[in-house]
Amino acid sequence: MKRTYIKDVKVGEKNRVEGFLENIRDKKTMAFLVVKDTTGKLQITIEKEKHQEIAEKIAGLLPHSVVSVEGDVLASEYVKLNGMEMLPDSLEVLSKAEALPMQDDANIDTRLDYRWVDLRTDKNNLMYKAQTCLVGAMREFCLKENFVEIHTPKLIGAASESGSDVFELTYFDRKAYLAQSPQFYKQMAMAGGLERIFETGPVFRAEKSFTNKHATEFTGFDIEMSYIESFEDVMKFEEELLTYALTKLKENYGDKIKEEFGEEVIVPTLPFPRMKLADVYKELEARYGFTVPEAEKNDLTTEAERMCKQLAKDMYNHEFIFVTDYPKDKRAFYHMRKDDMPQGYDLIWKGCEITTGAQREHRYEVLKAQADEKGLGEDVKFYLEFFKYGCPPHGGFGLGVDRLTMLVTGLTIKEVEFLFRGPNRLTP
Amino acid sequence: MKRTYIKDVKVGEKNRVEGFLENIRDKKTMAFLVVKDTTGKLQITIEKEKHQEIAEKIAGLLPHSVVSVEGDVLASEYVKLNGMEMLPDSLEVLSKAEALPMQDDANIDTRLDYRWVDLRTDKNNLMYKAQTCLVGAMREFCLKENFVEIHTPKLIGAASESGSDVFELTYFDRKAYLAQSPQFYKQMAMAGGLERIFETGPVFRAEKSFTNKHATEFTGFDIEMSYIESFEDVMKFEEELLTYALTKLKENYGDKIKEEFGEEVIVPTLPFPRMKLADVYKELEARYGFTVPEAEKNDLTTEAERMCKQLAKDMYNHEFIFVTDYPKDKRAFYHMRKDDMPQGYDLIWKGCEITTGAQREHRYEVLKAQADEKGLGEDVKFYLEFFKYGCPPHGGFGLGVDRLTMLVTGLTIKEVEFLFRGPNRLTP
Repeated sequence: MKRTYIKDVKVGEKNRVEGFLENIRDKKTMAFLVVKDTTGKLQITIEKEKHQEIAEKIAGLLPHSVVSVEGDVLASEYVKLNGMEMLPDSLEVLSKAEALPMQDDANIDTRLDYRWVDLRTDKNNLMYKAQTCLVGAMREFCLKENFVEIHTPKLIGAASESGSDVFELTYFDRKAYLAQSPQFYKQMAMAGGLERIFETGPVFRAEKSFTNKHATEFTGFDIEMSYIESFEDVMKFEEELLTYALTKLKENYGDKIKEEFGEEVIVPTLPFPRMKLADVYKELEARYGFTVPEAEKNDLTTEAERMCKQLAKDMYNHEFIFVTDYPKDKRAFYHMRKDDMPQGYDLIWKGCEITTGAQREHRYEVLKAQADEKGLGEDVKFYLEFFKYGCPPHGGFGLGVDRLTMLVTGLTIKEVEFLFRGPNRLTP
Repeated sequence: MKRTYIKDVKVGEKNRVEGFLENIRDKKTMAFLVVKDTTGKLQITIEKEKHQEIAEKIAGLLPHSVVSVEGDVLASEYVKLNGMEMLPDSLEVLSKAEALPMQDDANIDTRLDYRWVDLRTDKNNLMYKAQTCLVGAMREFCLKENFVEIHTPKLIGAASESGSDVFELTYFDRKAYLAQSPQFYKQMAMAGGLERIFETGPVFRAEKSFTNKHATEFTGFDIEMSYIESFEDVMKFEEELLTYALTKLKENYGDKIKEEFGEEVIVPTLPFPRMKLADVYKELEARYGFTVPEAEKNDLTTEAERMCKQLAKDMYNHEFIFVTDYPKDKRAFYHMRKDDMPQGYDLIWKGCEITTGAQREHRYEVLKAQADEKGLGEDVKFYLEFFKYGCPPHGGFGLGVDRLTMLVTGLTIKEVEFLFRGPNRLTP
């Protein structure tokens, strides 16, 4: 008999379900199991006298063992769990669990040590479904908009922009580095005439950061698009992409996310609000008396970033805010400038930066001058070559998949990554 | 005026197109440009006397420069290219190209040195569209079948199965390695109760191979699924996945692939043929007089693999063939065995192995014994832990995205990777 997902089990019929044992109560004459699969939970009620073979199989069995059970499913007002139970004809133990190595309330580091056990919680199960939905919707949106998918190399010959935070490895008889971002290569795709590309892939940062939102490896969702007229086109694309993805997420998992994580999935209104950096500080001061030293106003401080949540809500009744007009010394050399102002933005969601985006400088001479100005001319020589033989105007942005998942669920980076990687964690 | 894709240009109307200049013929009174975007090509015809401003802008302009042109599009029986031409009102040079650093017939290594120029060919443009379609369809199929997407770490703490071919890097004060495959982690997801997962991501192989199909970094498409009854379920899933993807590919790009690459996209019939390894050798000998020394018959030799193309065609009129029943000393320790026979397969497409798949051994004690038998017990200790606390029966496979693209286009690995990485190539 074929397996049925627990959510599809039919009352009044014979079904076969398979899953982990969430709970076992083995009494004198009766035994009660709760079987759980990715779709739901079902009580199995066993009259031990009548089913001695099954009783023997479950004697001494520990929770988290995996079973396959077949039998009639009946409605029962006595069963709290969905008001139904299965009376099994047969049960097969597919995998015997040892006693779990951790308690339910174990701290995050212990949970990560046994991540494969930790993954079984309802929360984590839902989290990956939600992430799959979100990323799937973003890809779907890109595909509708004529994007192609590329896979840029993670092994690179030269440490890119910020050489200090890059992992170095031995590549046969020389050195190689792990890509910190697909930035240079997605721009290469623009020079290559692919016009619009997206990529989902790992990015690596050799940073000794111990915050709730940093990791040494995480998943980036990157896009780059040609023939834009300004960075406004990039912001427009990003706000539409996110709105599309959050609409899908709300439709499919909004209620469950609310139930498990207490977080509301809100479909944003278009357009997202846009504010200049200087205006953000003005409003933070006027509204909340929040100030930072003048010298720090050339960037968004961590605290100011956090306060953008309230600001966006109070000024625009919105969760998102595009912050523009950062001074050039705080932006990458490859951001296009107009009247000396970088043509880019950060996108802040719920008080957390999720994107840096920009129109890129595609004119070789201008780009080279901007690289030289930051003392990077030699380091990025190979990259500057991409712009010598024709390159359309273009721009793009990157989103952290894990960070999006954090903001959807309210969890930390350690909790949302499939397997967190940090300065002190490289296992399992 | 908004940009129109060249394929959507309307005759008898004003349009604006943007793209690379494929060709420039600058004559005395007339100039003819061919503009190319990802959708097509259009001739721009300029009466120089009438449009002196445009004539000045294109004077000395080299092919591969990028332009934006606006004007009326007219049908013209004198224009070979689509029988239409644009008479421009205005032209803007978006990017000036220097003289190209290579000829059209440059060898592959030179082309890779200037990959961003090489990418502009019609072939390469089509290739990434086709790959996007293929991979997109595979994901779509998985999503319909209740798979979730995961992103497993590429930074790992211990060299996995085949330690010799792994890249080592400095990870703060210790060593780390680059994942050669997500194998162990996708199985961890099964122990984690995610039931069905897929992943698209880079895999790294520190192999000094200089063939037409090996690279040190390539893109893997991996799946793993729980609650299977045998590896037959895995083969069934894979053949349905590929048939779905090839159907989509044929619908969208079949004609163009035929035109550009001379390769027919054939939608396979279901089920794919299945043959035992020993029977493959029997048939190869009986039909083509092909033999290999007895000692080599425990695996498919490169030549035998190649000949499977003819064999599959002659015996089954098929491009694919599942080869099963490889002896255990040729298969990974984690393949489940039944009567000592590994429960797995290779999938050969057009005489090229594209997959190894299997049911995995999920029972801790059996798995540990199989690891010990291969002398790997200590190396894979962390992995064995995944199976101690309950794990459903499961199986899966991996496909190389680049290899699929090779087989669709008839190109080599160097030509299909966005940026090839090999023992002697780490740039650009």
